Amino acid sequence: MGLFTKDIKTMDDLFVHMLRDIYYAETKITKSLRDMIDSATDQQLKRGLMDHLNQTENHVARLEEVFRMHGAEPKAIDCPAIDGILEEADELTGDIGDKQVLDAAIIAAAQAVEHYEITRYGTLVTWAKLLGREDCAGVLHKTLDEEKAADEKLSSMAKTNINRKAA
Amino acid sequence: MGLFTKDIKTMDDLFVHMLRDIYYAETKITKSLRDMIDSATDQQLKRGLMDHLNQTENHVARLEEVFRMHGAEPKAIDCPAIDGILEEADELTGDIGDKQVLDAAIIAAAQAVEHYEITRYGTLVTWAKLLGREDCAGVLHKTLDEEKAADEKLSSMAKTNINRKAA
Repeated sequence: MGLFTKDIKTMDDLFVHMLRDIYYAETKITKSLRDMIDSATDQQLKRGLMDHLNQTENHVARLEEVFRMHGAEPKAIDCPAIDGILEEADELTGDIGDKQVLDAAIIAAAQAVEHYEITRYGTLVTWAKLLGREDCAGVLHKTLDEEKAADEKLSSMAKTNINRKAA
Repeated sequence: MGLFTKDIKTMDDLFVHMLRDIYYAETKITKSLRDMIDSATDQQLKRGLMDHLNQTENHVARLEEVFRMHGAEPKAIDCPAIDGILEEADELTGDIGDKQVLDAAIIAAAQAVEHYEITRYGTLVTWAKLLGREDCAGVLHKTLDEEKAADEKLSSMAKTNINRKAA
């Protein structure tokens, strides 16, 4: 994220910078979700992650729509935050032998990803409104709602199903 | 986080591992909040971050209490996720010249930190309950509630005050 931040002079620059940050993140998350689906053993968890993978591919398309609406080039910039979150997810879930403990760790890793997206899309919606771009805010809000719903679904799985089996 | 994950065999191991991960994160966050307070220009934002710094120091003490309650050694383990989130925060907020755009970026950076803590404490509360440690869950829940309140306060500042001035 740092390389281009010296070019940030206005809220508009900051908004476009953050769009590019989350654009990078969504692409990385798509790959990471595939790894989580491969590693997960519980069928309900696998299905939940696959549904979210389909949503994530749509989130990338929505970001490209917002770039177009705002007249900004749709390019990705490095995002050390999501790199760190995904590195931690890979390290943790790669080393657990017990399948049910592994499923619990995958849920926690997926929720850390969701919360990163929730905070970034929340910020982007606020900034879009501030810049008078209600049209962009509307598109970004759809994704924000889906990220929140995905997080709640994972919380519910953690409480009622997967974790209970691993105890 | 990866170095010791091969030792995770049970939900109890996973719980202690995650406690050590957030213990490391809280310590790093304390330092990062001090930098944000130094950089912020809006007085309301500075005060909000200072209040949260005081809370964060208490969160470290609460984690040490949970380690004691659970009979685990209170040690920190590397956490690439928070390292990445804070690296991104430093890079972004270090390079913006306009003070009001900088304040908006600081709020976004602080909210990314809050959301990392919200997801980890949420997971820890769930796992503590699952392990029959309602006592640990109660202590961890206090911190979770404070992290959520801090995030809401930052959202409110982003919408009504700081960002509006920077537009």
